[in-house]
This record gives sequence, structure tokens and C-alpha cells, in this order.
Amino acid sequence: MGAVSEAHEAAESATIPTVSIQFQIEARSGSARLGRLITPHGEVETPVFMPVGTLASVKGVPQDILEELGVQILLGNTYHLYLRPGVEQVRKLGGLHRFMAWPRAILTDSGGFQVFSLNDLRKVTEGGVTFRSHLDGSSHFFSPESAMEAQIGLGADIIMAFDECTEYPADRERMRQSMELTLRWAERSKRHFEEHKKDVPWSIKHVAPDTSSGRQAKPTSGGEHNENHAGGGARATQGTQSLFGIVQGGMDRPLRKESAERTIAIGFPGYAIGGLSVGEPRALTREVVESTLEHLPADKPRYLMGVGTPEEIVEYANLGIDMMDCVLPTRAARHGLLFTSEGKISIKQARYAGDAGPLDPNCGCRVCQRYSRAYLRHLYASNEVLAQLLNTVHNLSFYLDTMRAVRHSISLGKETGSSCVWSRPKP
Amino acid sequence: MGAVSEAHEAAESATIPTVSIQFQIEARSGSARLGRLITPHGEVETPVFMPVGTLASVKGVPQDILEELGVQILLGNTYHLYLRPGVEQVRKLGGLHRFMAWPRAILTDSGGFQVFSLNDLRKVTEGGVTFRSHLDGSSHFFSPESAMEAQIGLGADIIMAFDECTEYPADRERMRQSMELTLRWAERSKRHFEEHKKDVPWSIKHVAPDTSSGRQAKPTSGGEHNENHAGGGARATQGTQSLFGIVQGGMDRPLRKESAERTIAIGFPGYAIGGLSVGEPRALTREVVESTLEHLPADKPRYLMGVGTPEEIVEYANLGIDMMDCVLPTRAARHGLLFTSEGKISIKQARYAGDAGPLDPNCGCRVCQRYSRAYLRHLYASNEVLAQLLNTVHNLSFYLDTMRAVRHSISLGKETGSSCVWSRPKP
Repeated sequence: MGAVSEAHEAAESATIPTVSIQFQIEARSGSARLGRLITPHGEVETPVFMPVGTLASVKGVPQDILEELGVQILLGNTYHLYLRPGVEQVRKLGGLHRFMAWPRAILTDSGGFQVFSLNDLRKVTEGGVTFRSHLDGSSHFFSPESAMEAQIGLGADIIMAFDECTEYPADRERMRQSMELTLRWAERSKRHFEEHKKDVPWSIKHVAPDTSSGRQAKPTSGGEHNENHAGGGARATQGTQSLFGIVQGGMDRPLRKESAERTIAIGFPGYAIGGLSVGEPRALTREVVESTLEHLPADKPRYLMGVGTPEEIVEYANLGIDMMDCVLPTRAARHGLLFTSEGKISIKQARYAGDAGPLDPNCGCRVCQRYSRAYLRHLYASNEVLAQLLNTVHNLSFYLDTMRAVRHSISLGKETGSSCVWSRPKP
Repeated sequence: MGAVSEAHEAAESATIPTVSIQFQIEARSGSARLGRLITPHGEVETPVFMPVGTLASVKGVPQDILEELGVQILLGNTYHLYLRPGVEQVRKLGGLHRFMAWPRAILTDSGGFQVFSLNDLRKVTEGGVTFRSHLDGSSHFFSPESAMEAQIGLGADIIMAFDECTEYPADRERMRQSMELTLRWAERSKRHFEEHKKDVPWSIKHVAPDTSSGRQAKPTSGGEHNENHAGGGARATQGTQSLFGIVQGGMDRPLRKESAERTIAIGFPGYAIGGLSVGEPRALTREVVESTLEHLPADKPRYLMGVGTPEEIVEYANLGIDMMDCVLPTRAARHGLLFTSEGKISIKQARYAGDAGPLDPNCGCRVCQRYSRAYLRHLYASNEVLAQLLNTVHNLSFYLDTMRAVRHSISLGKETGSSCVWSRPKP
């Protein structure tokens, strides 16, 4: 553990303990937790919504605007990056952070869910999944081992075990089979990760000057600059990736409990709830989330994959979820669907053609501060590319502001009503 | 003159003289001139390259980034804006500046060149041009009067006479006919403009506290804020639009001379050279530009329409051109063609897939400062929308830096060699 790949650094690194992430809970309110996730590429305040940057880009938005929005962690999709530009290409260029010039934290999925979404183009066996590329139909194979290899090559701060996302609906036998497969894959994922995590394409050394504080020094952003800041401190640690486990079990509460317990028995620094938002009714999603959370350790980050609407992310944060991701704000933006404090707006509608007012009078984002609904409507109706940037920036701003409000409420010991989403004060 | 459309302001405005633009030449070097064009929406340092924002947007680039790049004047296309969102819509929303949230100067073309480009979809008569929309085939008619009405409704700081762009090649009789038509249309354009310029949808009052300085106070940016700053000064002037004439005459030097003289006789505050970059060899373009410039007044801004490459804009600035516009930097960017101090780069090429270096090591733009060629290549190859924004920002930065270098050279009394384009120092 902790050895870096270059031989000449082996002697030094052998004495340096490996730290991947730290998770500190700073306040609680009901089931909700206010936390701080410390990664090799910066701190993340939780509960957090993670924007999706599928192909090493949040579609249309430059990285400096993401920073300005306060994004602390991005999600990348291993399946897409594996196809383009390819893992080896990213690895040779120093990993995803350096490749996309994003110095803050990144999480990658395992590719499992994306491959699951391919439907007819995939075949699952004990060994892994054979699938065809949606780009050119070429045949590929993902196993727990190859998914780890891909994610180590990409070098996100948090990576995910390779799982099978159980389809909905499914009978109990199918749910159990699928859950058992995910558990076996979780063990293989962990084993391969532990054996190869030293191969991560970056090397970050943390220096914690006060070892008694219990909080690690804030790592500098940007792996490439870190060499300058490390080495001289009182206690150096070698940062590397963290692998999270994924709880499956379909919509069956006892299976979810079993999946949680057996995944915890394998042991991960964080746990995700997978297999939801796959077509089931929202009440059922909530029920499964709530019951699964009972079985997850309180001191580890809990990540609910693939949700949700603004109301849902507030609701799940209140249940005790720490991390969420969803394509909704970015994808909806590309279709002209905008979230505002006054409700959803379809900006393509003719009623906005002469509307000189801001998109959301209660929003402080750069879009609402500068442009009118009439202009945004014109850009969308004219297929101007700027529409995508401005719409995406606003929707992300709305989601991040929503999470800020949730964190603020938790810090005050209050539970945030989901109504807060539509009545946030102007910053 | 100078009266604004609201009756209750008529008494006040009757005493206020109208100022449209002022042009001051501050240095010369050979034929080149360093100037300052003062418009109702801010100052423009000349020689200037004007980025094209066809549909009230420089495709993919938000307005704050254009400001950061130092863009002082944008070009809008009347033909496109007339079709979408429509002149009346923009007028009701306060004009193009307010509509697109761009407080700095704007120039609109007359629509003549765009209609000329429609080829088979247009029919020219003495009255004007009947054409079919490229969007839906609907029939429309532009005359000098309707083109003025459209441009007054859009409310750019500088608007253009309605002309006929003579095709290339054309025989002498055709060139003369076309030139005569443009002259008759220039008279009609001016007459209609003078009668209706009071209908501009914005009202800006300049206040020059020191009337002896000869330089007008810098107008505040953003028409909507101007009311707060005007009225208390020593000498208030009412800003409005300026109409430029256009010299035609094909590739015939005597006709160009005649066109220049007779356009000057009509009288405009600035003169454009039109009908070039329509397929003729570059040496011929230069010859016509050079010979036409001899006949244009030295104290008025000279605008060469629709050029050019980085080398060409340096060359024409050295000949004494003050203003230029071209879709090349923005359109080329969308096709992955990038201008750098080391020459042109086609970023789609596989050779850049592993290139960790900046796009242009001598460029200080936000793209070159942050992203690698490998990342830009990946975005382009993956059809990511961010490619368009980043490529466009770099190309515009390159053009604007090129013009900055030209202005700097003129201020030092040196002529800029076009080689400067490829060897600019890092800012």
C-alpha cells in the first residue's frame, strides 16, 4: 500500500501512509448530515449534487464557469471515456484531472450502469459484460477487473465497484441472482483495486502540519503543482483513489438489507445505493432509499446514484444521503427546460418572446443577472449554441444553490422543506 | 433632428444637439492610422476587427467573455435578425444592445450582402430586392427604406446604406449599372434615415463637462443606466445612430473612383468598401482596396467589409483601413481550424490526441492558459459543444491580439509586418 509506481520513489513512499478520502460529519438535523469529504483533489461539502461531465466536459460549460458556480466534484462516465478518448490516452496525459484541466474532485462510475442502458447490445456472464459500442457497434468486454483498470487509469478521486443494475420490474429470484452477482463483482473489484491502486496516474502528497487536529491539511488543487507543496511537513500522507461499494437488491427491502450488510462486510470507504431511478414509481424509490439507509454505516459517505429533481435531492438529503448525481439539470437545459424559484419554465414557448424579465428574479447566477427570458427564448428558438451554455449554467446554479440551502438548514439544525427549492432568497 | 420619440421629452431634446459618432485620428504610420471611434455605446480603438454576431450572438460565446476579450464593437446581420426574432420584437425590447445584453457598440449591415448571397432566391428591381427566406421559403422585400427601418428598429450605433453587392466576375456595363443602382439606393437610404432616425429605440445623452477638450465624455455603457448619469453636465448631446455609405464599382478602378466621389457627395460620417471578397483573387482585392482608399476622406472612418485572414487584416490596416469584419475566425473555429502564432492548426488531426501542450504557447487567452491540444482535440472529435466555445474564444483572441499589435506598432510610428501575426509576444 502506498507505493508509487516509479521505483526510485519506492523507498520514500514505503514510509508514507496512504490516505484516500476522509469524511467528517459536522452537524446533523434529523436524519440529514452536514459533512466534509476530503479528497486528494480538494474538499467537498456534503450533501452535494455532482454535475455530470460524461465525456470529460459538462456539455457546453467551460471549467472556469463550473469553478465559479462552486462545483467541488464532477462525475465522469467510464463507459464513454473508455470509448473516447480511451483510458490509455487519458492515463498517459496524467489522468482525468489534468486531461480536462479540472483541479477539483472527480468521481467516475464503473461503466456498469451505462452498459446496462445499452439493452440489446449487451450480454452478462459471471465474468463480466460483453457489449457493443453505441458509436460504431464494435464489441467490448467489461469485467470487475477491467472496470477497475479503466477507473484507475482515468484517476478519479472516487471510483465505483462494477455492479449489475437490476432492471425494473424483476421478480425476487432475478433480484437475488443479480444482487449475488453484484456482491461477487464487488469482491473482485476490491481485490483488483487494492492490488493496482498504486498505478493511479497522479501522485499527491498531503502534509498535515497538526496531526492532533484530526483534520487533514487542505490539499492543493491540481496534481501537477503538488510536488512543490509536499514533503516538508510534519506528517506526509500519500493520497490515492477511493473505491465505493454499491448496494443493489432491486425493490425488495430484505434483499436491500442483505446487500447492504454483505457489501459492508467486504468493506469500502463509502457506499452507494444503485439500481434506483430505473422506471419505478417515486414513492417506491423513497421507500427503498429510506430502508437501505438504515443499514449503512453512519460514519461513511452515502451516495444515491442517478437522482433527481430539485425536490428529490432535497428530500433525499433530508433522509441522510450525502452525494447525488443526475443528468437532469444539464439534459433538461439542452431541451430548454429550466428550473426556477417560480417553477419549471419551457423557454421555447412563444409567451417568452417579448418577456424582458430575468429567467428567475430570485437567482443570482450570471445568466439571470444579465439576460432576459426574451433573449434566452430567441437563442433557443434559433438553435444558437449559446442557449445550451446559458441554460445549463442556470440549471446547475439552481441545483447547487438548492444544495447550499439544504446545507445551511442542516447547520441551523433545521430540516429543509422541499418547498425551499421554489422560494430561495436572492443571494 | 435630435428629437426623441416621446412627446414629453420633446421640449428638452429640441435644445440638445445630435451627436452620432466622433472619429479622432491619434497617430499615423505610413498610410495606417491609429484612431478612436466614439459611439453612443462606448469607444472603439481603431484599426478594429469586429466579430460577427449574426443572430445577436457570437455563436457559442457569452457576452461577458467577449467583454473580457476586449471586444469593443460587434457586428449583427440585419437579414438574419429581421427573420428571427424580428425587428419589431427587438425594437419593443429596447433595441439590440438591451436585447442581447451588450452595452458596447454594435454595427449592423443592411441586409444587402446577405440577400445577395441567396442567389436563386432573390430578384432585384429599382425598388429593392424580393427574396425568399432561407428558413422557410417565405417571400420578403427589402428596399433602401425598409432596410433603414429595420436597422433603426434594431438600433445599432452604426448602420449601413442598402447596396447591391456586384457579383464577380461581371462586365463593365453590369458593374456600372450596379454601381448606379447602389448610388440611387444610397440617396434613398440617407433620406429615409434622416427622416426617421429619431425613432431609434434607445435614448442616450452624452455629457461633456469640459467643452474645450475636444473629446466627448465617455458614454456610460448600457443605455438603460444612462438616465442616471445625464442631465447635470455643462453640455448635453443627444446620441443617435450613424449611417455609413458603401462604395461599389466591382473590380474596375475608374468605377470605384466614381463610386467613392459620388457617395461622398451624398455625404456620410463614414465610408465602407463593399463588393470585395466575393471570389476575386487576393491581389485584385488589395489593388481595389488601395485604389479606392485614395478617394476616401482622410478624416472619416473607413470600413472594409468581409475580410479577412490574420495576414489580410494586418495588410489592410497598414493600407489605412480602420474597421473590418469577417466570419473567418468564428466559422473556422467551428470547423476546428485554429489560428496560432505558429501557423494554422486543424485540431481534429490525430497527431494532437496525445499533445499535452497548449494550443498556442505564445497566447495568453483563457483557452491556451488552461487546456491542452489533446483536450481540445478530444472535444472536437467527440462533437462536444464546448469545443465550439473554446475554439471560438481562442480564434477571436488571436484576431483581437493581432489588431492590438497593429495599433501598438502604429503608435510607435512603425508599420506592422504581416509576419507579426505569427510571432506575437506572450502578453
